[in-house]
Amino acid sequence: MELYPVTRLAAVTEATSRSGLDALLLTPGPDLRYVTGYDATPLERLTCLVVPASGEPFLVVPRLELPAAEHSPASRLGVEFVPWDETDDPYALVAARLGSVERVGVADRMWAMQSLRFRDALPGVRQELAGRVLRELRMRKSPAEVAALREAGAAIDAVHALVPGFLKPGRTEREVGRDIAAAIVDAGHATVDFVIVGSGPNGASPHHELSDRVIQAGEPVVVDIGGMMPSGYCSDSTRTYSVGEPPEEFVAYYEVLQAAQEAACAAVRPGVTCEAVDAAAREVIADSGYGEYFIHRTGHGIGLEVHEEPYIVAGNTEPLAPGFAFSVEPGIYLPGKHGARIEDIVVCTDEGVERVNNRPRDLIVV
Amino acid sequence: MELYPVTRLAAVTEATSRSGLDALLLTPGPDLRYVTGYDATPLERLTCLVVPASGEPFLVVPRLELPAAEHSPASRLGVEFVPWDETDDPYALVAARLGSVERVGVADRMWAMQSLRFRDALPGVRQELAGRVLRELRMRKSPAEVAALREAGAAIDAVHALVPGFLKPGRTEREVGRDIAAAIVDAGHATVDFVIVGSGPNGASPHHELSDRVIQAGEPVVVDIGGMMPSGYCSDSTRTYSVGEPPEEFVAYYEVLQAAQEAACAAVRPGVTCEAVDAAAREVIADSGYGEYFIHRTGHGIGLEVHEEPYIVAGNTEPLAPGFAFSVEPGIYLPGKHGARIEDIVVCTDEGVERVNNRPRDLIVV
Repeated sequence: MELYPVTRLAAVTEATSRSGLDALLLTPGPDLRYVTGYDATPLERLTCLVVPASGEPFLVVPRLELPAAEHSPASRLGVEFVPWDETDDPYALVAARLGSVERVGVADRMWAMQSLRFRDALPGVRQELAGRVLRELRMRKSPAEVAALREAGAAIDAVHALVPGFLKPGRTEREVGRDIAAAIVDAGHATVDFVIVGSGPNGASPHHELSDRVIQAGEPVVVDIGGMMPSGYCSDSTRTYSVGEPPEEFVAYYEVLQAAQEAACAAVRPGVTCEAVDAAAREVIADSGYGEYFIHRTGHGIGLEVHEEPYIVAGNTEPLAPGFAFSVEPGIYLPGKHGARIEDIVVCTDEGVERVNNRPRDLIVV
Repeated sequence: MELYPVTRLAAVTEATSRSGLDALLLTPGPDLRYVTGYDATPLERLTCLVVPASGEPFLVVPRLELPAAEHSPASRLGVEFVPWDETDDPYALVAARLGSVERVGVADRMWAMQSLRFRDALPGVRQELAGRVLRELRMRKSPAEVAALREAGAAIDAVHALVPGFLKPGRTEREVGRDIAAAIVDAGHATVDFVIVGSGPNGASPHHELSDRVIQAGEPVVVDIGGMMPSGYCSDSTRTYSVGEPPEEFVAYYEVLQAAQEAACAAVRPGVTCEAVDAAAREVIADSGYGEYFIHRTGHGIGLEVHEEPYIVAGNTEPLAPGFAFSVEPGIYLPGKHGARIEDIVVCTDEGVERVNNRPRDLIVV
């Protein structure tokens, strides 16, 4: 049960062939890591795994990065490493080796400074997103990937367990955020990806991060935090706390929110569409008269990226399948007053749903 | 003397117009930050500053990010913010507002998932790199930018001052690296970008990062470290230490290296080409018989990115101008044995050179 099995490359080649693309060009980022396990640093110097639909894959790598590539999991794949020197043109090198192609898939996060160089080195060749090929594979998490998400979930749950101790009237969001960031690392994450502490009116802005605002007694505080584990897999969980007794109005809509989050999680099973999960949360909130205050989609996929497919949003008719992993995070936001969000990462199982975040979802008064 | 002056947008519009491009499309990353000061998070949801060669710039922004954008320095620019909702198509929105265009410049780090969406939303429109327009501006650091690089240089120098205390025989590279990472944050950086601790033979691989190798007495150790300051500007400096008395062979080539780094720094002044600075270091090393062991370019530009233009490499005939900031970091690497590198960030001044890193360059025996 390997996280980055060596058999994956063959599956990707096969999927590339079926897609009608002639090759994938994968630069450092989540697509390359998914296929090879190689956590290469994105640099202006080109590192690129070339996966032809037929023929042998090869990894073009700056000679300076060759030792890193050789020590990475990519070395287990038996693909040829093609080093290039400081004054070589690695794009011409890829083009020459690729030969005659019509359509290539480039990594979804390839920088324009590289995709446009490939466009010029491969005149007349149509670029599409490698995601077209990889999304079907990346969306269905393997048991090892689900285990990695579970581990990430437990790590961020351990941080949320500490949050009540950090939240005190008189402290600023930034002070609390600093404690949380340290706890994210202490809990085993390799990086801190985001720390949102939205107190009082700041809680009504879903992507507010940190400010020097002093938290007051009686204020709700939205805490949305996550990081990347050494495995490469990400955590992301939100709880809303109240520092002292919250306003009545808040208590009323928090109950609605909790029911909505519950309803959306309960809706998760194979065959249900992404938009139906979104609707399950949205209906509960709308029926209680708060519809206009739920201003974002219900969730996003998660894995090697914090945000990836599938998106749990109106219009996405993709049916869920076992292994799909995504956030369920409805929110209610009263502009200028306060807001609330409850977020768990869930995995669609053969028969229903598993949550990888398990901290209490009742309103936590600290 | 503002770091992100509001006048910059007009200069960018003017440069866009002169370049023959009809507009720039700037997604989150260093290009957007340079133009606006807005440190927007790169997301799958499109945030994009559109800078037409003639006409008014506007910022397309997910409604969720609107409060963040409004609180950012971008709000000082007087550009219209155009929010879009979760089920809108922001690419179509940009296309409709842009009207008839033939050539656009996309941010150098724009993800393919966005540049290909723009390609499809703007059929027949030629994409080029925004860097074509921005490089001339970004390469010439303003006095405020030079001050920010000086501040970053002082911060990383403060970390190097602590390194001798971290380096002890019996400790692993990873243990030393952890201390260094904490010190990088303590010295005022917002993020740790890289920590290279290459002991003994690992020092012969220039981009080696950290391993569990135990540092032995008598071993040279290459320490190359950097991070990003809250200003957005980056630090990057290398010193080579010896844990106890180093091998004679090492002492011999370290002297050569120090002379080479000195020669390259001394070569810096307006009008001298980038490749001439590279050659200045390379000649000293080649003349001493170590030419084959200096396996990379002499340096890279630095600013809002750790690696940006100008690159100090053979073939780059760009003449230096006042405000150009870049690393001077020759190295000598004996495969399987050990290596050494000395790196300072320097700024080309009206008459010569200023180094922003000032730790001793003699071999430091700890």
